[in-house]
Amino acid sequence: MMRAAKPVLTPHDPDFESRVRESFERQGAMKLIGASLEKVAPGEVEIYLPFREDLTQQHGFVHAGIITTVMDNACGFAAYSLMPADASVLSVEFKVNLLAPAKGEAFIARGEVIKPGRTITVCNGEVYAPGEVNKLIATMTATLIMLQGRTGIPQG
Amino acid sequence: MMRAAKPVLTPHDPDFESRVRESFERQGAMKLIGASLEKVAPGEVEIYLPFREDLTQQHGFVHAGIITTVMDNACGFAAYSLMPADASVLSVEFKVNLLAPAKGEAFIARGEVIKPGRTITVCNGEVYAPGEVNKLIATMTATLIMLQGRTGIPQG
Amino acid sequence: MMRAAKPVLTPHDPDFESRVRESFERQGAMKLIGASLEKVAPGEVEIYLPFREDLTQQHGFVHAGIITTVMDNACGFAAYSLMPADASVLSVEFKVNLLAPAKGEAFIARGEVIKPGRTITVCNGEVYAPGEVNKLIATMTATLIMLQGRTGIPQG
Amino acid sequence: MMRAAKPVLTPHDPDFESRVRESFERQGAMKLIGASLEKVAPGEVEIYLPFREDLTQQHGFVHAGIITTVMDNACGFAAYSLMPADASVLSVEFKVNLLAPAKGEAFIARGEVIKPGRTITVCNGEVYAPGEVNKLIATMTATLIMLQGRTGIPQG
Repeated sequence: MMRAAKPVLTPHDPDFESRVRESFERQGAMKLIGASLEKVAPGEVEIYLPFREDLTQQHGFVHAGIITTVMDNACGFAAYSLMPADASVLSVEFKVNLLAPAKGEAFIARGEVIKPGRTITVCNGEVYAPGEVNKLIATMTATLIMLQGRTGIPQG
Repeated sequence: MMRAAKPVLTPHDPDFESRVRESFERQGAMKLIGASLEKVAPGEVEIYLPFREDLTQQHGFVHAGIITTVMDNACGFAAYSLMPADASVLSVEFKVNLLAPAKGEAFIARGEVIKPGRTITVCNGEVYAPGEVNKLIATMTATLIMLQGRTGIPQG
Repeated sequence: MMRAAKPVLTPHDPDFESRVRESFERQGAMKLIGASLEKVAPGEVEIYLPFREDLTQQHGFVHAGIITTVMDNACGFAAYSLMPADASVLSVEFKVNLLAPAKGEAFIARGEVIKPGRTITVCNGEVYAPGEVNKLIATMTATLIMLQGRTGIPQG
Repeated sequence: MMRAAKPVLTPHDPDFESRVRESFERQGAMKLIGASLEKVAPGEVEIYLPFREDLTQQHGFVHAGIITTVMDNACGFAAYSLMPADASVLSVEFKVNLLAPAKGEAFIARGEVIKPGRTITVCNGEVYAPGEVNKLIATMTATLIMLQGRTGIPQG
């Protein structure tokens, strides 16, 4: 529906993709839940999550928190893809709407920068269950902050 | 960016537009701030707000709360446009990101249903300043609830 | 319910109260809706809003956007009260839950800093209708950013 | 800071605690991340999460999504504790602010009902790292919906 102009998404670092992939690999949580990083484009990231029983809540659907975990990553790495090579990214806050039960064999989380900024970047995310009709499961709006030279926060 | 399927937006009431416009007319707050209802389509509403000095915050931009007021209405009436004739709509919650100062001669708030539902409807909203480039000012995600036959809440 | 430690709220500027009150006075929107600034303490602000017909939505309650306007201000000025004298504050985002219809003769918006920071400050806000029982109308969580020396954003 | 009246939190079902504990036990995700259910009171729940390397993001802190997972559960079960025995609870949406890196040996997630309702319940949640000073890590506001007799959603 966006009728406002689309943002221009230009990465500061030409090696953004390898930087994003290395950062993703350092996340213990992604291995634990079995998520993999698919597409990495400037300001846009996709993550793939197969269904597993040990990801579920009490009704047998994937837990909203696990859905959030992959959406937060898709948004965070979408923001990070535009940042300088020595930057770190942290989530300041996010808001999630859960639109349908997370049923399905697999899920795709997509994150996209809607407002790049010097300090603050804002992203939209979604998770859908791919199929004949790609069923929308959840949406996110996330606010990320870029840190540079902050002690205690390694690059990534 | 949405790669999930778009929702099907079918109004329950063929007279949805006049119902939306009557409800809008009953809002004292819209008269106070000088907003007018423009487009009304199934699941989609646009509101127009000219700049006025008496809508500003301390820096001379339109107040984030006033921007929210028109976005909340655009979302609420987008949801209401799909509901039965005897229903009422109330905002359960919303989340707003303020992406740029609300500078400009006028602003357009758009609301769109992303998930229609029996009880809960979810909408996305945005406000932009129209111009050569339509500058995105703010975004909203809103959760609305439909009420029917609830005492104390008149239809609308 | 907070069992985490409370934040220490120390203003950088001993004249924080006059600075907050001057900034409030510059807001055209506050005059328009008839809101007044009551309490100003370090990291805590209260705003008073009497009911008026021209603040209402279609059901005769005060519009959620107007309720948001005073809550956003209570949060923004609570954050601003802790900042250096040459700083400006802007809302990055906020999230509002509407818990009860805004019925009553008057409303009090309170904002409180829950996490002061160098760049980012997070506040909680609420609006209630005072009475024998103070009825909770709405809650807010707001993220604010401090700007210093940014051209185009006057102090305040 | 809440000066509005506190809600009265009365469980519909005297066996609420065993019902909450059984539902928690059915969550594969809780076993996966090693979380345990501690306190269950009417409208209030605490969950304990020890630090593990396989819960981390790229900087070595516990992933914001995992922190969200336990907060979402604390809120969801706090809401569920007040509901009738044949009800199910689902998260409609939540909003998370990440206030400090999730460093520490363990974390406690607390959820509390701030507005019980027939259909919609609103909760506040927080995660803190217990210590000499209990360090606040994150906060949540969550909107939950009660379902009764909905096919496809088992009780819990």
